[in-house]
Amino acid sequence: MKIQNQSYRTIWLDTEDEGVVNIIDQRGLPHQLTIEQLKSLNEGAAAIREMHVRGAPLIGVTAAYSMYLGLYHAPEDTDWSTFIPAAVKALQETRPTAVDLFNVLQRVQTALEGRSKQQELVKTAKDLAAEVAEESVSFCRDIGLHGLKIIEDIYENNGNEPVNILTHCNAGWMACIDYGTATSPIYAAHDKGIPVHVWVDETRPRNQGARITAFELKEHGVPHTVIVDNLGGHLMQHKMVDMVIVGTDRTTRNGDVANKIGTYLKALAAHDNDVPFYVALPSSTIDWTIENGLKDIPIEKRSGHEVKYIQGLEQDKLKQVLLTPAESPALNYGFDVTPARLVTGLITERGICEASEAGLSALFPELND
Amino acid sequence: MKIQNQSYRTIWLDTEDEGVVNIIDQRGLPHQLTIEQLKSLNEGAAAIREMHVRGAPLIGVTAAYSMYLGLYHAPEDTDWSTFIPAAVKALQETRPTAVDLFNVLQRVQTALEGRSKQQELVKTAKDLAAEVAEESVSFCRDIGLHGLKIIEDIYENNGNEPVNILTHCNAGWMACIDYGTATSPIYAAHDKGIPVHVWVDETRPRNQGARITAFELKEHGVPHTVIVDNLGGHLMQHKMVDMVIVGTDRTTRNGDVANKIGTYLKALAAHDNDVPFYVALPSSTIDWTIENGLKDIPIEKRSGHEVKYIQGLEQDKLKQVLLTPAESPALNYGFDVTPARLVTGLITERGICEASEAGLSALFPELND
Repeated sequence: MKIQNQSYRTIWLDTEDEGVVNIIDQRGLPHQLTIEQLKSLNEGAAAIREMHVRGAPLIGVTAAYSMYLGLYHAPEDTDWSTFIPAAVKALQETRPTAVDLFNVLQRVQTALEGRSKQQELVKTAKDLAAEVAEESVSFCRDIGLHGLKIIEDIYENNGNEPVNILTHCNAGWMACIDYGTATSPIYAAHDKGIPVHVWVDETRPRNQGARITAFELKEHGVPHTVIVDNLGGHLMQHKMVDMVIVGTDRTTRNGDVANKIGTYLKALAAHDNDVPFYVALPSSTIDWTIENGLKDIPIEKRSGHEVKYIQGLEQDKLKQVLLTPAESPALNYGFDVTPARLVTGLITERGICEASEAGLSALFPELND
Repeated sequence: MKIQNQSYRTIWLDTEDEGVVNIIDQRGLPHQLTIEQLKSLNEGAAAIREMHVRGAPLIGVTAAYSMYLGLYHAPEDTDWSTFIPAAVKALQETRPTAVDLFNVLQRVQTALEGRSKQQELVKTAKDLAAEVAEESVSFCRDIGLHGLKIIEDIYENNGNEPVNILTHCNAGWMACIDYGTATSPIYAAHDKGIPVHVWVDETRPRNQGARITAFELKEHGVPHTVIVDNLGGHLMQHKMVDMVIVGTDRTTRNGDVANKIGTYLKALAAHDNDVPFYVALPSSTIDWTIENGLKDIPIEKRSGHEVKYIQGLEQDKLKQVLLTPAESPALNYGFDVTPARLVTGLITERGICEASEAGLSALFPELND
């Protein structure tokens, strides 16, 4: 997608230097656009852990490229049989909730098996990272085309009034490689000339909505309004929301979805007001090994510092300000689980299905075995 | 209640100067405690409109004292028959949602009727303001005693584990004159030695929870944890909340409650997880003239600036920082309506009742006529 009319992806191989991967460091957005060069496995792991990059698909691709960086910069005499599992483990430990990370690392590890020449290992990891990235782009594009039909239907049923879509957090192209998951149908509709307007949940504590989704939409020219996370219920009560689309960091085989903290509250409000609640996801976020999202999806606990302090712009400088009494403790979980019963449908790269094992299995029969 | 071990109320007559009323200017909390002197009707109206003071009961009392200030400082030859209605109108227009404001101004206007000597008018308004303030203190104290029983019951049923109470916004003593509404049972339990722990919703956009409720609880020594508004649903799913208590700015005759934006989302989550959801209110917040809260309670729309910018402390100075892209619009409604069906009970100064016309009428038969 575009920033100031220039095309970007969220991660790309440096064109000049081997062993260097570029990312958009998203922490300064929307105020600062910083391109960061990753030059080692550790820098890649830190970029994931400290959320220079975030979003389930992008975390997965960054992990794959981090493996490439690790293998590229390792000394020639490295014992690969210990290096590779250690590198995988280091990356697995960066974030616990998004399943793409674990799926992608599993794929890398499988691809590397049986190889021992550094050059071959490096090429394998590099090719796989590129493959996963291209897969993500293609999945996101297809999610957009399937989701577009839902928006078109609402538009026709609304007497051609603009379609109001609420989204939480950032499941945009900045969470992926391009297009986004939840935003992909929105971009597809907008680009086709269907008038859409997006209610952007600011998404405390890290404000991925107010910072990143609003930035994306603004750069692409999509009408949008930033709202506090508290407002969505009121808007739904007053018929100001036609549909909700969110992303997911992990989807269980029965259709429970873990997504950014607060998603569950919006799902409850949508259910209470008969507003369709869709979750957009590439199949890479499905965890076929678990059923009960509430019991089985590990939920990341982050520092209370992220609740107590917030970053913003003051006189052209990024500042962190304290919001609470300095002595008051804060608790900070990154995700919650929305039970399948509250989800109208899952928008995948292969089409839309019911949030259930039957629904997912019908679309992905080869994955559920 | 106490701040740094000194007893305070939120509003009081200056002991040295006639025609001066003191308030705590709450905008700088928790970082700055500022005592402001109000010396005119206009300063009183501005203090309400610009939220130096807030909270339904405190807004009502501040309006009454503002009438006193207006009458006291008016020239001797004022035409009271035009002055009084104009003063009432100016105060009515400060905030639209809290009904106490309108109820109290009605009382003042009735009390002033038939009087024409300035000295008498001034004394009448001053006495009435003091009466409304004392009433609020007494109502809040009694709400605490009734609500205490609910907390005691939970404590006993929990095997004497600490009781986890979630609250939204600030319905504490800072929203009233003393004790608070939602916090009054909490203070009563804490003071009685029942271990309580409060989950404090930060309450975007103005962060009354993170700023004021946390400050109050800290100063009184009540264990608490600040959380983002997005977290409460997750905590309830995981049985980390034993009850919810919130305040209300206006309660309809059938028990619908308007409270700070986001309250409805917490009520939905409480309902979905069988967590008792109580609303604490003095009878002054009941609007017997309306039934359907969603249709009939006017909801205040405030500036989007409050969403886009936030205030906090940086290096001992209060700073406002920009959170969103400067070009992105924001929408800001101050309240939402929680339908009676989601409310477990109303805690009033006369006891606890069902959130229904039958429940309210049984406690306040003389008011419903």
